[in-house]
Amino acid sequence: MERRKFLKGAAIAGAGAALAAPAIAQGTKTITIVSTWPRDFPGLGISAQRLAANITALSDGALTTEYFAAGERVGAFDAFDEVASGNSQAYIGADYYWTGKHPAYAYFTSVPFGMSTQEWTAWIRFGGGQELWDELAGSFGLKSIACGSTGTQAGGWFNKEIESADDLKGLKMRIPGLGGTVMSKLGASTVSLPGGQIYENLVSGAIEATEWVGPFNDYFMKFYEAAKIYYTGGMHEPGGGLAFGTNAAWWGSLSDWEKAVIEAACAQEHEMSHSEAMAKNGEYLGKLVNDHGVEVKTFNDDVWDAFGEAAAEVFVEVRDHSDLAKKIDDNFQEKLREIGGTIAKFEGNFLNQRNRILGLG
Amino acid sequence: MERRKFLKGAAIAGAGAALAAPAIAQGTKTITIVSTWPRDFPGLGISAQRLAANITALSDGALTTEYFAAGERVGAFDAFDEVASGNSQAYIGADYYWTGKHPAYAYFTSVPFGMSTQEWTAWIRFGGGQELWDELAGSFGLKSIACGSTGTQAGGWFNKEIESADDLKGLKMRIPGLGGTVMSKLGASTVSLPGGQIYENLVSGAIEATEWVGPFNDYFMKFYEAAKIYYTGGMHEPGGGLAFGTNAAWWGSLSDWEKAVIEAACAQEHEMSHSEAMAKNGEYLGKLVNDHGVEVKTFNDDVWDAFGEAAAEVFVEVRDHSDLAKKIDDNFQEKLREIGGTIAKFEGNFLNQRNRILGLG
Repeated sequence: MERRKFLKGAAIAGAGAALAAPAIAQGTKTITIVSTWPRDFPGLGISAQRLAANITALSDGALTTEYFAAGERVGAFDAFDEVASGNSQAYIGADYYWTGKHPAYAYFTSVPFGMSTQEWTAWIRFGGGQELWDELAGSFGLKSIACGSTGTQAGGWFNKEIESADDLKGLKMRIPGLGGTVMSKLGASTVSLPGGQIYENLVSGAIEATEWVGPFNDYFMKFYEAAKIYYTGGMHEPGGGLAFGTNAAWWGSLSDWEKAVIEAACAQEHEMSHSEAMAKNGEYLGKLVNDHGVEVKTFNDDVWDAFGEAAAEVFVEVRDHSDLAKKIDDNFQEKLREIGGTIAKFEGNFLNQRNRILGLG
Repeated sequence: MERRKFLKGAAIAGAGAALAAPAIAQGTKTITIVSTWPRDFPGLGISAQRLAANITALSDGALTTEYFAAGERVGAFDAFDEVASGNSQAYIGADYYWTGKHPAYAYFTSVPFGMSTQEWTAWIRFGGGQELWDELAGSFGLKSIACGSTGTQAGGWFNKEIESADDLKGLKMRIPGLGGTVMSKLGASTVSLPGGQIYENLVSGAIEATEWVGPFNDYFMKFYEAAKIYYTGGMHEPGGGLAFGTNAAWWGSLSDWEKAVIEAACAQEHEMSHSEAMAKNGEYLGKLVNDHGVEVKTFNDDVWDAFGEAAAEVFVEVRDHSDLAKKIDDNFQEKLREIGGTIAKFEGNFLNQRNRILGLG
């Protein structure tokens, strides 16, 4: 605790020295963070709270965080305006919640047939992704940093098997973002609901199907009480990241060291939340099957082909929105093929052979 | 730079206050780091130097690092004894270089038919891996932290096609760790050489084949001057992590904040180096093929089956070494099946469908 002692020692010393008092006041800043997740929400909420606490710990108290879960200061979907206006300094959430502001926000969470988490993170760090994210968020007075991931999302919870795209026609499903637009093109009737409202709608029959995250996160939502068929890896959110979205003017006012501390805490949580989901999904998938009679299914090739055709149409529409949307889609699709195509040759080839030989999957 | 000003301000104040002088001395520590990579070595060396600099930056100068590349203070393979003895505080390298000390060190870098980087990281963080690593390293007075990854390694550089396991018989190949033992079982004559000595041995014909890392790292090694056939994802090092290995007594003497800073810097670099390799492998694979006439091949199912049978024998031998080796293998193999098997159902299923539809891989 030498450094902390040093700070305390300095404060004591400062009590008798005129110069130290204002220096101490400069050294402590409070960051007000509003979240899109309910308090203590398993997986996502716990991750956001861990990140807020870690910024304080990693700065040795110089950056104090004040964390408000969804609804405690503003509603989940009001976090964008709260931070853009400067009322709070940062939000934690999924940037594709803001596609109503600009459809290209979807690329900075996850898009259909898009990137896995490791592909997306490579794109953000070294493929030009962060620069495009800065340009998009900057146009709203915001600056986003990757701060979490839950991996490839499950296809979702259904009451019937999906054997062809025809089975999606008229289906009332909760699925937000561009994945929802893909499902709509195939005839589903889709809605976007925050996490805290899905269960009641599924149980009441207002919706017949929903996707959420993956086994670890989904387990606690108890969707199995109303839908017994669970599809593995879906097309709609293959991976990507959550956002620590800051007010850009406030971010610009930080010292290099303060920025470095926040970026390190976000990078650490980006990996930590992903690792947690990857480590726990297997255990929770087992509980869903063994304790709650859930049936695990995989979409067949015909359904995937239909998803693929609908997704291609959706990207044409996003590109038509604006020059910035086109520029982001151009870069994203190019890097997806370069990064993803190469990973397929190395890790993909290994995993397919290993899984074949060990009988996994 | 408020915090830095604060520290400076406190120092000025302290000049007239008896309590502050010793506190300042406590607040700055020098960490001597010895590395297994040559200075400015593309990929691995640059990553290690970035990590050393980042520990200083993230601690706002409270932890000063003094970085010695391989040979500058001790030789690459002498880093273990240098840190275990307390002569230096930390090394950066691959812990499977220490399998001569204990064969189970292999699991904490990468083993044949083992985990991808995201699987391994999940195991380390949430699957019991770190606790086992602590137990193993602790028995030598060391404590290791994951600090880098280069993803699934290429099968290697060859002068001839490998169409069956027979083609490996008598082949002189540089391949360290348990992957080398697998190759030996199939009749190859294997050696372990540090990175800085491979090229000269390949050009002279002392070895006929070598593996190193992947396209981005391999490009700079110029192996293509002596071997034109490059195999994609191999069985020997599917992913995992590099180590920031510290002297355990020194680690124990650090404050919680100092530990948190080092752990955050290591976690950030673990992801950063992996992201860098994933983002750049495609570009460098293109250069190898287009500028240097490299032929890219994939091992066929028969070769993979032979690898699988030899690997199974190797693990039996490792387990026979000691109770600790058996305990680590038990946990590793269980978590590989749980974590890897579940990722195969979600991300793996998605990637195979996406790659089929987009024509990637």
